[in-house]
Amino acid sequence: MNFNFLQGLIVPAQTKIAMIIMDGLGGLPLEPGGKTELETARTPNLDALAAQSALGLTVPLAPGITVESGPGHLGIFGYDPLQYRIWRGVLEAVGIDFELGPDDVAARGNFCSVDTAGLVTDRRAGRIPTDVSKGLAKLLTTPIDDVEFFVETVKEHRLAIVMRGPGLGAALSGSDPQKTGVSPLPVRALKPDSEKTARRVNQFIERARKLLADQRPANMILVRGFDKCPDLPAFPELFGLRAAAIAVNPTYRGIAKLVGMQVLKVDGGTLADEFTTLERNWNDFDFFYLHVKNTDIAGEDGDFGRKVRVIEEVDALMPRLLALEPDVVIVSGDHSTPAVLKAHSWHAVPTLLYSRYVRADGIAEFGERACVRGGLGVLPAKDVMLIALANAQRLTKFSA
Amino acid sequence: MNFNFLQGLIVPAQTKIAMIIMDGLGGLPLEPGGKTELETARTPNLDALAAQSALGLTVPLAPGITVESGPGHLGIFGYDPLQYRIWRGVLEAVGIDFELGPDDVAARGNFCSVDTAGLVTDRRAGRIPTDVSKGLAKLLTTPIDDVEFFVETVKEHRLAIVMRGPGLGAALSGSDPQKTGVSPLPVRALKPDSEKTARRVNQFIERARKLLADQRPANMILVRGFDKCPDLPAFPELFGLRAAAIAVNPTYRGIAKLVGMQVLKVDGGTLADEFTTLERNWNDFDFFYLHVKNTDIAGEDGDFGRKVRVIEEVDALMPRLLALEPDVVIVSGDHSTPAVLKAHSWHAVPTLLYSRYVRADGIAEFGERACVRGGLGVLPAKDVMLIALANAQRLTKFSA
Repeated sequence: MNFNFLQGLIVPAQTKIAMIIMDGLGGLPLEPGGKTELETARTPNLDALAAQSALGLTVPLAPGITVESGPGHLGIFGYDPLQYRIWRGVLEAVGIDFELGPDDVAARGNFCSVDTAGLVTDRRAGRIPTDVSKGLAKLLTTPIDDVEFFVETVKEHRLAIVMRGPGLGAALSGSDPQKTGVSPLPVRALKPDSEKTARRVNQFIERARKLLADQRPANMILVRGFDKCPDLPAFPELFGLRAAAIAVNPTYRGIAKLVGMQVLKVDGGTLADEFTTLERNWNDFDFFYLHVKNTDIAGEDGDFGRKVRVIEEVDALMPRLLALEPDVVIVSGDHSTPAVLKAHSWHAVPTLLYSRYVRADGIAEFGERACVRGGLGVLPAKDVMLIALANAQRLTKFSA
Repeated sequence: MNFNFLQGLIVPAQTKIAMIIMDGLGGLPLEPGGKTELETARTPNLDALAAQSALGLTVPLAPGITVESGPGHLGIFGYDPLQYRIWRGVLEAVGIDFELGPDDVAARGNFCSVDTAGLVTDRRAGRIPTDVSKGLAKLLTTPIDDVEFFVETVKEHRLAIVMRGPGLGAALSGSDPQKTGVSPLPVRALKPDSEKTARRVNQFIERARKLLADQRPANMILVRGFDKCPDLPAFPELFGLRAAAIAVNPTYRGIAKLVGMQVLKVDGGTLADEFTTLERNWNDFDFFYLHVKNTDIAGEDGDFGRKVRVIEEVDALMPRLLALEPDVVIVSGDHSTPAVLKAHSWHAVPTLLYSRYVRADGIAEFGERACVRGGLGVLPAKDVMLIALANAQRLTKFSA
């Protein structure tokens, strides 16, 4: 997407766009020939909306490529995730409202468990309670020579680690081996400007190993996703939208903040609370991004039934959104997370786009195979924002 | 596709990928409203596999663009055929195991027939027997000034012509008018660095006309597809696959060799012999490309029924492949060759991708219109390898 070209096309309007992102929405059947999670879920409201919508399947980055949440969200927000990157460390730090300086290097950390031989036995240290995690994080928050280390608990075992000091680069490999039964990897500099940082990080990890040696189950840390704050064009200016983000999980609050959306306060942590936030702020914004995390968590846990129930929960809340009479509704995901794979996957994501002016497919079903038959076809996720803007009558004609 | 970006995503696995390429697979009905060759063929095995597969239509290079075998194969092998080019001359030379030097210029040649006015009456000289062709080729294998000319019979009327000498460029137009009733065209330099080569080639053609004047039916030659050996990234390194090619026709052995696949010896020349080669080598490779030539030949001959029978022959052999329990199966073509057009065409190519983890469409039919309804959609051929790697669980997640 050439954003310069887009600028000349944005026109003001009074229309409102709501984008409901069910994290890891796309799925697979448990057994070949069966139904996916979304196809299994009883979704009368989404099905009725589908009948008035255009359906399709979005490709987050490129066919066959599995993405993390960062690039997955950039795509559905209209950014080419190959051109713009947000690494996990920055997401975590921004998500917990850590004020990242321009030269700070951020990483995603995990408390983990290792055995006496130093081999990873649990990459998440049994998902230790957040307050325990916070106590351990404090232990690790001390400088090494001229580099400050800020270690902040995001939630449970998840940490945001920020380094601040002279001459730091962010081109580093991670220590997380992404599997158990093996040792954490040494962190390596991928460019010469990051060699000092690699040394400090390895010192930091070694010190953490000693400081945590007597703890159970969190007796080690893993780090990955090093980056500095990226320079992203701001979503509100790019698309001419007063944009609000409604998300409970810090990572998604972080990405929304990075693209310049206003992140709204959600009282309580339930999905219903998110919809209440939507209702309360409806008059003040043109665009709402509402994030549903539990579809992805259920998928990663391999819990097909739970993912089905989360989707049904979203469906039950849809009338509250529709009662607000949005001009454009997008229901999609940032990537697929089939329970059968217990992981993010490369499969295209079922996507529904409703508006008064959409060419409706008349398919009264929201599911992967229904979306194959839809008029949006198989399309890059980054194109969805353009179609949404068009349907919101916020784009003028190209050319003079 | 940025191959640098792909490198970081390749992970090792024990999975096997089989790619069956029926040359010129895509077709058209003989009469509007009728069935294509593939739709007409009785293909119970492919239909059953289709039911468990994702279907789609691949675009070899760009919509509307008809390709030769070189770019068609580069696309299905995952290379962007606009970025990487192999011209016909190089293919022919490599296919017959001619050791091309880095500065050699190779061309595809045809023995042809011309009338007394010099107009082409048969571009293939009645497909003269290979041994006759070899005798005539020897006649032409002599230098012109400082440029050596190697003329080698590929098969029947088909020649590989290689020039070797100082100061040769490969930016040359061909002499083949691609139709009968007209004169061969003079060869022209398309860049200044190829002007000497153009002069030598025109001298060579003029000499051939004299040397062949008393021969029947091969009394002239046509040349096209000039190029030097291209510098292609090697398929096995690019995709992390021990890759084997099974093809009888020299052109396809050549292209497989150019991308770095190991070209296997096929005892005998039948399709069944190719499947026997597949079985014998199954344990030693991760990726198999198996090429079926006769679909294309039947299409070019305008023989609808013969093309149908070749497809049925492939279908009957499919159980031998499936008995090997491949993790991923791709059935596709390098381009379309509808019998009704008697030529390669621009039409997208029916494509089937089977794996345990594919989102199966549940369409129990492999045909052009069935593929329109498939979940792969209409996609660039070069994306198929990415989807195949993903399904073979050979790609890790993008981002940290």
